[in-house]
Amino acid sequence: MEVRIDRIKQDLEVINSFTAPHGQGITRFTFSKEYMGALSYVKKELEKIGAAVSICRAGNVRGRFPGSEKGKPAVMLGSHIDTVREGGRFDGALGVVAALETARVIAEKKISHRHPIDIVIFAEEEGSRFGSVLTGSRAWIGKLGPENLRQLKDQDGVGYLNALEQAGLVIEEDSILEADQIKAMLELHIEQSVVLERKGLQIGVVEAIAGIKQFLVTIQGIANHAGATPMGYRFDALQGAARVVLSVEEIAAEKAGGNTVGTVGFIHCIPGQANVIPGKVEFTLDIRDTEPSVLDDTVKKIKEAIERICKDRGLRFEKKLRSDTPPIHLSRNMVDLIEKVARGKDVPFLRMASGAVHDSSTLAELTAVGMIFVPSRDGRSHCPEEYTDLRDIKVGADILLTSALELTA
Amino acid sequence: MEVRIDRIKQDLEVINSFTAPHGQGITRFTFSKEYMGALSYVKKELEKIGAAVSICRAGNVRGRFPGSEKGKPAVMLGSHIDTVREGGRFDGALGVVAALETARVIAEKKISHRHPIDIVIFAEEEGSRFGSVLTGSRAWIGKLGPENLRQLKDQDGVGYLNALEQAGLVIEEDSILEADQIKAMLELHIEQSVVLERKGLQIGVVEAIAGIKQFLVTIQGIANHAGATPMGYRFDALQGAARVVLSVEEIAAEKAGGNTVGTVGFIHCIPGQANVIPGKVEFTLDIRDTEPSVLDDTVKKIKEAIERICKDRGLRFEKKLRSDTPPIHLSRNMVDLIEKVARGKDVPFLRMASGAVHDSSTLAELTAVGMIFVPSRDGRSHCPEEYTDLRDIKVGADILLTSALELTA
Repeated sequence: MEVRIDRIKQDLEVINSFTAPHGQGITRFTFSKEYMGALSYVKKELEKIGAAVSICRAGNVRGRFPGSEKGKPAVMLGSHIDTVREGGRFDGALGVVAALETARVIAEKKISHRHPIDIVIFAEEEGSRFGSVLTGSRAWIGKLGPENLRQLKDQDGVGYLNALEQAGLVIEEDSILEADQIKAMLELHIEQSVVLERKGLQIGVVEAIAGIKQFLVTIQGIANHAGATPMGYRFDALQGAARVVLSVEEIAAEKAGGNTVGTVGFIHCIPGQANVIPGKVEFTLDIRDTEPSVLDDTVKKIKEAIERICKDRGLRFEKKLRSDTPPIHLSRNMVDLIEKVARGKDVPFLRMASGAVHDSSTLAELTAVGMIFVPSRDGRSHCPEEYTDLRDIKVGADILLTSALELTA
Repeated sequence: MEVRIDRIKQDLEVINSFTAPHGQGITRFTFSKEYMGALSYVKKELEKIGAAVSICRAGNVRGRFPGSEKGKPAVMLGSHIDTVREGGRFDGALGVVAALETARVIAEKKISHRHPIDIVIFAEEEGSRFGSVLTGSRAWIGKLGPENLRQLKDQDGVGYLNALEQAGLVIEEDSILEADQIKAMLELHIEQSVVLERKGLQIGVVEAIAGIKQFLVTIQGIANHAGATPMGYRFDALQGAARVVLSVEEIAAEKAGGNTVGTVGFIHCIPGQANVIPGKVEFTLDIRDTEPSVLDDTVKKIKEAIERICKDRGLRFEKKLRSDTPPIHLSRNMVDLIEKVARGKDVPFLRMASGAVHDSSTLAELTAVGMIFVPSRDGRSHCPEEYTDLRDIKVGADILLTSALELTA
């Protein structure tokens, strides 16, 4: 039983034809015109093969293939189709099209399955539009309520639920996903790192997903004339922030042997003019690790560094937690299943941690979750250069298909 | 002979009632609605006391009071009324109102003067709207031609000359200012630093104005997933840029005893998202000194630091010169004159350098220039907190008046 890679290729091409008109790579923000174009394509493809498609809580989409035995919990396959700004063609979209292709093969071959198969497209995974990652999946399992969604606004001040409505989506099933409704969740995703490529492997079996703490830090100094203020008399907020940027790298890197990462991806000076000493600087802090204690310790060390730097330089600071996703160890049974399937196909694999969070991280709170990684060329992701070879995709999607068959049988 | 501080206070209040509606402090960009409001007030005040007001080359404004003797070169007094974004109430505006008040006193007292007195308002001194400092003054002395002005665009793509026209200004005198038309130029300005305040002095006599080299630096790394990319595999452009920010401070500060300053006032990550490693960072570099050799050496050392940092981290960079104003030593005669006047009034003063450039810097290429500084509270400038005590302003404006009387007699 194999997937047809030509159909996967075609699906990816159609989905990625929907991208915002300016900039490089793919920009497909949740509920945007482009998003709705891609979503509509996937919905139609699901309906073609007999799925009952419904718009669920928070704009998540589910295409259901009922099982042969009544009352059995569903096996969920899927991912997301929203992207970061100027992102790539595979992050999220690959997991959706591999799930779609799995359903196609099962439908075509008329393979009987006792459990329902749910092909799902989670909304706002990246958080690019509303600033909060995993929004759809967290809302679906009841971790975010309508109150939380109402507080989420995009850059133009449009609220999450208004945007959903403006996109023409009507929620047909607003109920929370319950544990007894789902047997398992499987997601195929690109690795987004260099590990598989460096090791010459096609498949990663994810054991754990790093937790992530994101902060917005504001350093307050004193804005002043860049020419008239002698060096010794300055309270330059950017000089403070730059030292924090260095310490983020140092602290994350010194966790020898661990998988700690720390990133400042956004920084902004106020007033932000060449001839004015920055009076205020805002920047983001993104810290990840698979071990809760290491994650907490890293955040603590960075906070101490900020305190020390600000104290030394007469600056003040504020640090606001923007998101907090705990590390997750995936189901042992699912790891075993995927490994068994890979061995059956003579595909060497690597057990690994995921530094990125995924909708699977959310679902792991509810059900047994398995994740299959395929390599990213040069480890590039969240950028136009993001690329995964079709041969690797084929191997990954075949493992997804066979694993799904075992789970749904 | 004294100025009336109540009128200066009133002039400042009226001018600063013209500010862009949002944000703190004063934002009055060249040729904006607010700018035109303030300009119109000054023009009317000049006309009230008999000045012949004309719109000159590049939108500079001149109010002329003819001298009693034909063919004598003019004595120019003035400054600018444009501000930085969210700037202060005194930078520029004070020099204009002190010049206006000087003309009022001379007109009221019917003091005869052989030389014409020109009260001038230079356009786009700060460069806040069109990104190029001293634009009006440099165009007036012929350093910028219509071609250069045409290339200057604001953030919305509006060209300098179009903006001037859209503001309803019609250039009446497009001729270049020639050396034989001007005897001297005098400017009263706030110090924009802490030196006078720390020394408890009311008056600074400017001997030299720092030269300024401004660059836009771009560091190119590789954008990648902030979670999935291990620390050792990153080419984070912001990690490089942060090290450059540190080296700017270190290199400027180590010029012991000098007056070198170095500032990064603007920085921008691309794509600028919390969960993406910055692939590209742009930032400005503003380096100043009164000695050309020290200025050049500082720029050279910073360039070496950028090269070293980028080489160490596998990054590329580009450094574009945005503006280049050489250091200027002001006229010895003018320094002597201002000092003599100050001594005559029993006002202690300090000879000093100006770290900020001024329209006077431009005029110094053409004529004898004198600059009088008054203290800035806490050394704050280019910010809403910019403040100068009216008593200090009174002392400075009186010295301007008496010096102008000597020059025009």
